[in-house]
Amino acid sequence: MSNQEKNRTTVEIHGQSYIILGLESPSHIRYVASLVNEKMREISSKNPSLDVSKLAVLTAVNAVNDYVKVKEQLEKLQEELKKEKD
Amino acid sequence: MSNQEKNRTTVEIHGQSYIILGLESPSHIRYVASLVNEKMREISSKNPSLDVSKLAVLTAVNAVNDYVKVKEQLEKLQEELKKEKD
Repeated sequence: MSNQEKNRTTVEIHGQSYIILGLESPSHIRYVASLVNEKMREISSKNPSLDVSKLAVLTAVNAVNDYVKVKEQLEKLQEELKKEKD
Repeated sequence: MSNQEKNRTTVEIHGQSYIILGLESPSHIRYVASLVNEKMREISSKNPSLDVSKLAVLTAVNAVNDYVKVKEQLEKLQEELKKEKD
């Protein structure tokens, strides 16, 4: 898919503007950006001495951790359903 | 829960060491860190001019996006199951 078919959404995260290119709707991207912002604020308030890049890396670690957990829940549920059908 | 009961895991992400405090096992944290590293490398290879903090923020956006999607899938499946039982 070419860039022309992707949405360009400008969001502000931690005081900095970012242009996000993707197939997702602008409202979805803005929602995601607001979650990232919130997570960064939360981690920053607990660790006020962190510089922005470390703060952002820890935010990414936090987000990937959440992702892995919910992904495991999903896979477990899918497996249970499969067993029920067998 | 006090810090004493949390695991301290040192991981390296994008050439920088981080101490992660959490209830998760060190092996889980190392797995999460390896996913963050991979995502950062992938985004960096597509956008070689990004500085580390922007790269990390975009990695966090990417991770939260993945999280939101899989979370929606999980909720949809849970709702379907609930309907089946009703």
